Amino acid sequence: MDFLNTYLIYLIPFFGLIGIAVMAVKAAWVTKQDAGDGDMAQLSGYIADGAMAFLRAEWKVLGYFVVVAGLLLAWSGTTVATSSPVIAISFVAGAFLSAFAGFLGMRIATKANVRTTQAARTSLAQALKVSFTGGTVMGLGVAGLAIIGLGSLFIVFYTIYVKNVAGSTVNGEDMAKALDVLAGFSLGAESIALFARVGGGIYTKAADVGADLVGKVEAGIPEDDVRNPATIADNVGDNVGDVAGMGADLFGSYVATMLATMVLGRELVGPDGKALHDSFGGIGAVLLPMVIAGLGLIFSIIGASLVKIKNETDSVQKALNIGNWASIILTAIATYFVVQWMLPEGEFRMVRDLDASGALKAGAMVITKNGVFMSIVVGLIVGTLMSIITEYYTAMGKRPVLSIIRQSSTGHATNIIGGLSVGMESTVLPILVLASGIYGSYHFAGLYGVAIAAAGMMATTAMQLAIDAFGPIADNAGGIAEMSRLPEEVRHRTDNLDAVGNTTAATGKGFAIASAALTSLALFAAFVGVAGIEHIDIYKADVLAGLFVGGMIPFIFSALCISAVGRAAMAMVEEVRRQFREIPGIMTYEAKPEYEKCVAISTKASIREMVAPGLIALITPIIIGFAFGPEVLGGLLAGVTVSGVLMGIFQSNAGGAWDNAKKSFEKGCMINGEMHYKKSEPHKASVTGDTVGDPFKDTSGPSMNILIKLMSIVSLVIAPHLNANHAAKPIAMKCEVKKQVIVQAYSSAITKIDKKA
Amino acid sequence: MDFLNTYLIYLIPFFGLIGIAVMAVKAAWVTKQDAGDGDMAQLSGYIADGAMAFLRAEWKVLGYFVVVAGLLLAWSGTTVATSSPVIAISFVAGAFLSAFAGFLGMRIATKANVRTTQAARTSLAQALKVSFTGGTVMGLGVAGLAIIGLGSLFIVFYTIYVKNVAGSTVNGEDMAKALDVLAGFSLGAESIALFARVGGGIYTKAADVGADLVGKVEAGIPEDDVRNPATIADNVGDNVGDVAGMGADLFGSYVATMLATMVLGRELVGPDGKALHDSFGGIGAVLLPMVIAGLGLIFSIIGASLVKIKNETDSVQKALNIGNWASIILTAIATYFVVQWMLPEGEFRMVRDLDASGALKAGAMVITKNGVFMSIVVGLIVGTLMSIITEYYTAMGKRPVLSIIRQSSTGHATNIIGGLSVGMESTVLPILVLASGIYGSYHFAGLYGVAIAAAGMMATTAMQLAIDAFGPIADNAGGIAEMSRLPEEVRHRTDNLDAVGNTTAATGKGFAIASAALTSLALFAAFVGVAGIEHIDIYKADVLAGLFVGGMIPFIFSALCISAVGRAAMAMVEEVRRQFREIPGIMTYEAKPEYEKCVAISTKASIREMVAPGLIALITPIIIGFAFGPEVLGGLLAGVTVSGVLMGIFQSNAGGAWDNAKKSFEKGCMINGEMHYKKSEPHKASVTGDTVGDPFKDTSGPSMNILIKLMSIVSLVIAPHLNANHAAKPIAMKCEVKKQVIVQAYSSAITKIDKKA
Repeated sequence: MDFLNTYLIYLIPFFGLIGIAVMAVKAAWVTKQDAGDGDMAQLSGYIADGAMAFLRAEWKVLGYFVVVAGLLLAWSGTTVATSSPVIAISFVAGAFLSAFAGFLGMRIATKANVRTTQAARTSLAQALKVSFTGGTVMGLGVAGLAIIGLGSLFIVFYTIYVKNVAGSTVNGEDMAKALDVLAGFSLGAESIALFARVGGGIYTKAADVGADLVGKVEAGIPEDDVRNPATIADNVGDNVGDVAGMGADLFGSYVATMLATMVLGRELVGPDGKALHDSFGGIGAVLLPMVIAGLGLIFSIIGASLVKIKNETDSVQKALNIGNWASIILTAIATYFVVQWMLPEGEFRMVRDLDASGALKAGAMVITKNGVFMSIVVGLIVGTLMSIITEYYTAMGKRPVLSIIRQSSTGHATNIIGGLSVGMESTVLPILVLASGIYGSYHFAGLYGVAIAAAGMMATTAMQLAIDAFGPIADNAGGIAEMSRLPEEVRHRTDNLDAVGNTTAATGKGFAIASAALTSLALFAAFVGVAGIEHIDIYKADVLAGLFVGGMIPFIFSALCISAVGRAAMAMVEEVRRQFREIPGIMTYEAKPEYEKCVAISTKASIREMVAPGLIALITPIIIGFAFGPEVLGGLLAGVTVSGVLMGIFQSNAGGAWDNAKKSFEKGCMINGEMHYKKSEPHKASVTGDTVGDPFKDTSGPSMNILIKLMSIVSLVIAPHLNANHAAKPIAMKCEVKKQVIVQAYSSAITKIDKKA
Repeated sequence: MDFLNTYLIYLIPFFGLIGIAVMAVKAAWVTKQDAGDGDMAQLSGYIADGAMAFLRAEWKVLGYFVVVAGLLLAWSGTTVATSSPVIAISFVAGAFLSAFAGFLGMRIATKANVRTTQAARTSLAQALKVSFTGGTVMGLGVAGLAIIGLGSLFIVFYTIYVKNVAGSTVNGEDMAKALDVLAGFSLGAESIALFARVGGGIYTKAADVGADLVGKVEAGIPEDDVRNPATIADNVGDNVGDVAGMGADLFGSYVATMLATMVLGRELVGPDGKALHDSFGGIGAVLLPMVIAGLGLIFSIIGASLVKIKNETDSVQKALNIGNWASIILTAIATYFVVQWMLPEGEFRMVRDLDASGALKAGAMVITKNGVFMSIVVGLIVGTLMSIITEYYTAMGKRPVLSIIRQSSTGHATNIIGGLSVGMESTVLPILVLASGIYGSYHFAGLYGVAIAAAGMMATTAMQLAIDAFGPIADNAGGIAEMSRLPEEVRHRTDNLDAVGNTTAATGKGFAIASAALTSLALFAAFVGVAGIEHIDIYKADVLAGLFVGGMIPFIFSALCISAVGRAAMAMVEEVRRQFREIPGIMTYEAKPEYEKCVAISTKASIREMVAPGLIALITPIIIGFAFGPEVLGGLLAGVTVSGVLMGIFQSNAGGAWDNAKKSFEKGCMINGEMHYKKSEPHKASVTGDTVGDPFKDTSGPSMNILIKLMSIVSLVIAPHLNANHAAKPIAMKCEVKKQVIVQAYSSAITKIDKKA
């Protein structure tokens, strides 16, 4: 144990290395599976090429962005004492690793899809094994790279700024500098996530909506028909949006929760006002979130190994649940012992909660190791409840979806009203869970508790992501089976997997929103400490104004995402119509559609349209922070977080419920004693709802996660540069000018919509 | 002037009496106009009967509510020193006067409608005169009764608690008590407004959607066709929702802004720490908002007299604009002199901004009379800008509506996506205007400035409401012309008025939202002072949790409103279908439909469905306030206000834009070089959007105004009862129990939806 006490910090990256090693073995296994015959291989080749074409185009833009932002960060790092130009290096590392994780995931997903189709010719068990192993590769890649990156950089900065500096204290300015520089890693990861989520979301829905509007509605051919020129783009979209986008999203949350907990952990001191104790170099509370994440990664590997079935009639969902619960419960148990081991006995507290005389301020929390463990349990419960609630609101056969089905009988409009109402209603329970979670985790361990609750929830990210990524692989596999016109029984097996994938997509979204919300709150708490302010008082007029502006941002962000999908889908519709018109052999299978043109439309549109929302998310906190000071920025962040979480839940759940209402008609729906099937009038109304829901659930809804996290992390990074004593009311002239900058930024964004619309 | 100095307080109700006297003259004039021939009189009789049937049913329920709530208030008034059981009397007075104003407005509107139709047989000028005079009666009634009520009660309470009490100080505890008791008047008015807006909104849209779905879509008969059994209910709805609902809404805002400014005005002291000066009994700052409102009422009468046209081709909109601007500009000028007269020279400040030694706290504002006037100007600018922006986003021929028209060409789904995106985008500018307004009015005169800005904006309420109420009267007149199958030229004139009415409805909604937002902020500021807290610090975990829960409430409130309309409309659809089926003579004009059955369905549904959202608005602040203390309640209020304003703007504007996109097809729309008219596919898609938008713009959207105001006024009323030193973190057990109460309240609300759906 003595050895561990001293060298634990150096062992953390090894957890990540184990994950990557297991990932490599699993990836090799997937690759050597049979990829099927000529047709299938060709189709999957198209999909893989399209996916890589998107990544290349995206990387080109992101390359410029990373260079420019990196240089700005390096320059700004020289302007304050508590930062350093080195922050640019962590930023680039974070961006690179996030992009690399996305690349690995896409590569394996585009291999696993066709191999799953081929495996489905043998048995459901084998098909599950291939598709889930593909998902596991993605999960382990994301978690492994995140731990390796964050863990190694922390070793470097700790060595440079703290360990080898004479007279440094582990919870003093030196450690603050190390963590501030490390925050660049999280900023880099989250920036990539923004573009991956928004760009990927626009890509996938432009292709999907475009393919459906002409293919299903106008030409009357089924979904995933090889004759539809947009079908390849649609399948590429599943990978781009659901695999790479979700992966980057969770990579960002995973890193940010650890970082925020580390920042808050630095502030923990014993009753003597000194760092916790001598073990772990006095930084046990800083290392704790990374150790928990490392353990979660190991237990995710174990949990993933439990996901298997034997017979055709075994429940795939049950197999996934067993693996998921195993990893969560094992992690929770291990966490108990780790907390007992790494944190000292007795009470401790946060530096910011002490007054000048070293006494605890009124109302501030005293923290104990048992309290910290309880906060982690709160985090696990919040994550689980959010998934369950999301599933209830979007699952077939449950009250919300049934109510939409019933309202489809009176037409398109009532179907839409029903879905919007379900989406709005679905915010109630998640918000009560989240509010209780904030309240509870704070109650047990103060602000450190709020952050560690998020870290606990994110510990099994590898497993969550394996389950998430399995969905689009199964969806793709079904698409390839349909396009290759394989036998009924194969399609039946892939449909089975796909149906489970739809449920896991819904629960995964609930988890992603919960993680984003808790991550943002952890970053929010970290921001307040770093900015050196004591309150964020919405009773002050300017802070209240910030709260209003913050609350509005998710609305304009959603509007930009949704209208981008609308525009790109219309371009797609015109291209597909053109091909049907100008290449007459398509409908008789005599000529191949020009798939690559549709892929190019989606790619270009998504790259172009992700810029405006991206800039709003990145620049707004910088302008507000420097023009109005950290307290107003705090108000802005609170507004963005509350409104973003609500809009995220509303849009994701409305979209999911509309989707499953439509799917319910495939097996037939009973409305007022009459059965309705596909092509009936109620079914047509339900298709309208599904199409409206597409950008809601796959573009703007999930983008809210990134928006709230990214604005928080940007604020955390600029926090040391802000003037904590910024007058509550800056000179009117100065702020007038700045205000005009904001107004102009928004009006130019609107003019842009104007021109394009 | 000396006389005025001393007796101004007793003159305030006379402003109201002048308004009521003018109203009586105008009402008599309208009544003696020709009500047309037998058919028309019969139809308008049905509408008037239906409207009164609704009011009777509503009053029955409200009667119980007022008695129970009044008893509770009387009881609670005995429990703290700063209140009194007398508050129950102000509550009942506020409720009664609000209901009475609604009654007067409905009565005159249901008389003016048919008389406008008859006048339209002569000339457009005469039709405008009748319909606008009808609107003026409503406006003067609301403003007059509000001033009489508030002014007289203030005289009474001032006399009881302040003037005749030995040793009392005009800004001390005695005045606080007088104003606390007076707050009951605002609570009563706003409670009635809640039920009028929500109930009226559900009524009007259930009838409208139900009539359209069967009449226009299934039976293929025009809107307002006498054969449609729901057409009378639809016309009643215009009065119930747009006249009575809007009137009660603005009655509430008008009273609440005055009250909040009076509460804050009490705190103004000179540099010596004493009340302002000896004029006006030392309460100039308290009386100021009522005097401004009184002047605004007088100038509204003058403005209204300028609204007239001579020729058939004169612009009705221009006539309304002239009257509106005249009243606003005259009020602004008069206000300048009143402020100069009533407020003292030199600097003054708010008591709460002074520390124990009497010095101004850091960052607090010093207030001057010029600053106060500038804040009022800010309020007038905010109101005007909000109206202009709302018009831009909902007007025909402007970019937002054109974009929806274009997106109608690819079907129902893209039309919906377009409208949702326009609605979300439309939040940007209003929020920036509002945030600048908060910032600016605070900058000029601190929190008193924020409140007086709202009061300034509301000063011309009588004129605003006259313009608003003119719309539904014209709409009804058109309906009667259509139902009575009057000649083309008559219908042409009423259509002209109706089109202007649609625009004024949009700008009126912008004004109503702005007024609700500023009113809530003024109440928020008053609440903080009365509750005796110094901060609302969202950095505290429990306050942040409150912010989240508050942000969620507008979502569940909207969901309840929207789904109520959906359910009621489906009941209406079934009844209309039944009548068409069982009374075969209807379609050939041989049999009269059973209008009263449809009226009964709308009435019952609206009364039943307004209860659940009403209780959420009333009870949530009480539970949160007593369980978690005033600071958490402050967080809740901030969340409700931000989220409510955003959802209100989003829903109202999306609905308005959809409506006008649909209307644009009547004259034909050019899409991609092709003209599309009524019954074309794009038009059908636009009808879907309009139907979705109906509950958005007339039920849930406007209800947000009441929601945010009512929760603020409830908080203000209970503020003296709350423990300002409530532990930031109450004992876990106790709050667990309270939390469960909230969870249960919400889950029972959801279960209720469940059963009904």
